[in-house]
Amino acid sequence: MTGAPLPDANAIRAAATRLAGKTIATPLLSSSLIDARLGGRLLIKAECLQRTGSFKFRGAYNALAQVPPDRRAAGVVAYSSGNHAQGVAAAATLLGMPSVIVMPADAPAMKIANTRAYGAEIVLYDRYAENREAIGARIAQERGALLLPPYDHVDVIAGQGTVGLEIADEAAARGLDLDAVIVSCSGGGLVSGCAIALSAASPRTQIYSAEPEGLDDMRRSLVAGHRLDNDPAARSICDALLAPTPGAITFPLAQRYLAGGFAVSDDEVRAAMRVAFENYKLVVEPGGAAALAAAISGKIDLGGKTVVVVASGGNVDAALFAGIIRT
Amino acid sequence: MTGAPLPDANAIRAAATRLAGKTIATPLLSSSLIDARLGGRLLIKAECLQRTGSFKFRGAYNALAQVPPDRRAAGVVAYSSGNHAQGVAAAATLLGMPSVIVMPADAPAMKIANTRAYGAEIVLYDRYAENREAIGARIAQERGALLLPPYDHVDVIAGQGTVGLEIADEAAARGLDLDAVIVSCSGGGLVSGCAIALSAASPRTQIYSAEPEGLDDMRRSLVAGHRLDNDPAARSICDALLAPTPGAITFPLAQRYLAGGFAVSDDEVRAAMRVAFENYKLVVEPGGAAALAAAISGKIDLGGKTVVVVASGGNVDAALFAGIIRT
Repeated sequence: MTGAPLPDANAIRAAATRLAGKTIATPLLSSSLIDARLGGRLLIKAECLQRTGSFKFRGAYNALAQVPPDRRAAGVVAYSSGNHAQGVAAAATLLGMPSVIVMPADAPAMKIANTRAYGAEIVLYDRYAENREAIGARIAQERGALLLPPYDHVDVIAGQGTVGLEIADEAAARGLDLDAVIVSCSGGGLVSGCAIALSAASPRTQIYSAEPEGLDDMRRSLVAGHRLDNDPAARSICDALLAPTPGAITFPLAQRYLAGGFAVSDDEVRAAMRVAFENYKLVVEPGGAAALAAAISGKIDLGGKTVVVVASGGNVDAALFAGIIRT
Repeated sequence: MTGAPLPDANAIRAAATRLAGKTIATPLLSSSLIDARLGGRLLIKAECLQRTGSFKFRGAYNALAQVPPDRRAAGVVAYSSGNHAQGVAAAATLLGMPSVIVMPADAPAMKIANTRAYGAEIVLYDRYAENREAIGARIAQERGALLLPPYDHVDVIAGQGTVGLEIADEAAARGLDLDAVIVSCSGGGLVSGCAIALSAASPRTQIYSAEPEGLDDMRRSLVAGHRLDNDPAARSICDALLAPTPGAITFPLAQRYLAGGFAVSDDEVRAAMRVAFENYKLVVEPGGAAALAAAISGKIDLGGKTVVVVASGGNVDAALFAGIIRT
């Protein structure tokens, strides 16, 4: 946690200016067949099409672009299960900075290979026995590098919030009045950033987090009114959504701006990945499909409503994806 | 063939006005990893994300929106291997028109099921023994319905040309100077429409067709200077690209505007589908991947160049897609 002020709508507008021309303005997609089935209007913010295959490039670039030129040579260190890894590696390379990424040894092979291809040095660790924050902090100290956390950082949250800003801007341009927006949640950087942007631009819209069952720390923490941990034994197919607790910065933002949270089962996530494949022609990874899973499994009543779900990433190994869409 | 004048850039601008708010302005996607591998800049026009999963909705809606209201009740008849089918069915339903679609019995199951779900009545035929044009013409005559051919129609070509217009407009907005655009080709409606739009907006850009090997009637016809047929025994994984010969309207347009054509093997198409999955998070069907296949298999030298490929559709059955991305 830093001493910087909490991010606000102005910080997100500033991030959008920094990201212009660097990120893809991902489309809001719809399917008349799915809308007819649900009795409402469902739009997918296809952030899996973002550079590096997830929204994480936004926060990483927004943070690293603010590193003064004379401090860039020392580089950046990050710990990540894979999407923040790729976002930081690609953003650092674009800005001429070296990067070291601490990744769990059981991360999807594609995420590890791509992080290296984007230009990073990789350090692997055991997700269930070692502390990634400690490893990252030690390397950062040794090298004098910036340690960029995956969600609990004001510039990262502001960058992720540009997803919400784009949703609000496109909805306004298309004359859509949004009843709800559902956003997948691990540490809460994306959902809290989106909520800041949307609460300013579209105050009537209700924002929800979507998490795996058993790893729904944000949902339970919002109910309890304080931060709760997940059971360390909990497992999910959603490798991108395994953070143990809401962030120290993201949680108060979520308390202020979110209407609540949803928890989805692995089977509901698999069904959502099939729908994304068949009806939207999108490759969505398990964690990226949590919000869509919440919408199509009936966690929220879509009858007569207009709801946006963020498909936050698409970095999934071919064998896993093939197995899921065939069943 | 109609007696109407050939479509021009003005007809495409008029189509774009008609389609505004009905179609998705599909994104131009890129991958820094692929660009580094190819030594150039490759952009994918992700038309698989279009409503109904292919560009075909554009031409269908542009044509049907011009049917006078008092003639809409008689409906529309179309013959199609699946993408035109879905485009016509969805456009007709939007405009309150009944539709009958003549489809080959061996079309992908998803294409048949979705065409029915979009509201059409389906008539199946044997692709290798029966004449779909004759079946369609007979039904249209019986019902007094409009027969809308899949490519050889000025309003269909103008509608498909809005893909090229969007490419030109986005390239201009992003300051990209396009060296080449490659477009998949069956009867030639999409490639000729795109070529009209691009030749007006970006005269330096070279336009190429991409077809399956053995079904590369457009490429061979351009070399010969007159329309040639494919060997009826030729087969390809690209079920959307099996038209036997260039269209009577599309061919003279292709002669005027195209720089040439490429032929791609089924293996090159499969490799392109894997690249679209892994690097662009797109579900692209075999025929939709022909242009990408031409680019990444080296049919055109991308060194230092900026090239757009159109990914024209994403309607592929899960079992086929799963088998291709796993290998």
